[in-house]
Amino acid sequence: MNSGRTLELTPVDAATDACCEPSGQPTIDTYEAQLRASVFKALADPNRLRLLSIVKGSEGGEACVCDLTEPLSLGQPTVSHHLKILVDAGLLHREKRGTWAYYSLVPGAIERTTGLLESL
Amino acid sequence: MNSGRTLELTPVDAATDACCEPSGQPTIDTYEAQLRASVFKALADPNRLRLLSIVKGSEGGEACVCDLTEPLSLGQPTVSHHLKILVDAGLLHREKRGTWAYYSLVPGAIERTTGLLESL
Repeated sequence: MNSGRTLELTPVDAATDACCEPSGQPTIDTYEAQLRASVFKALADPNRLRLLSIVKGSEGGEACVCDLTEPLSLGQPTVSHHLKILVDAGLLHREKRGTWAYYSLVPGAIERTTGLLESL
Repeated sequence: MNSGRTLELTPVDAATDACCEPSGQPTIDTYEAQLRASVFKALADPNRLRLLSIVKGSEGGEACVCDLTEPLSLGQPTVSHHLKILVDAGLLHREKRGTWAYYSLVPGAIERTTGLLESL
């Protein structure tokens, strides 16, 4: 609910002494809001959500890019574009082995993302 | 993890009898992915996240639109535009009383949204 950064400046009984509009400020600053919005932007696409769901459900926790094009009926350049956005957002991990790249969910990424919303 | 819609068609031991690529399909269909993506699109903007945080932290759980412009240094048309997107996404509830509109978090909206990600 609160970042804690200004707690030391707030008297213990500030809430009871507050005026009639004590809650008119955002709990996150502009920079933090931009960071959080960029993660939700990565999730704001149906194909990226479906790619995430395939990787999340893959045996061994990882999926080869070669197995991600057919289920979505998309070309490999399009799939690679979406995967890059998910990697850049910190949701997927990419590992190149031989000819192919393999993708796995970054440990704790789902929990951290839900936390971005719960802690608003 | 599973929508449950096809459970009745799946033999109990399907997982153990599965071939070497049992997890190559998305767990959500195109329509469901579009619905979920639309909610994340509403969250993919720093000003909308800051508006949500103000409403969430407001005394009594609601904030007048007249109190939402100054904290973000935005004009009222811009704020109203962002608030409409949050209402359309099912995140905020809007109630007109007299001159002003009042906004509150839709009960359970945060939990439902985090569930959209956790259940991929």
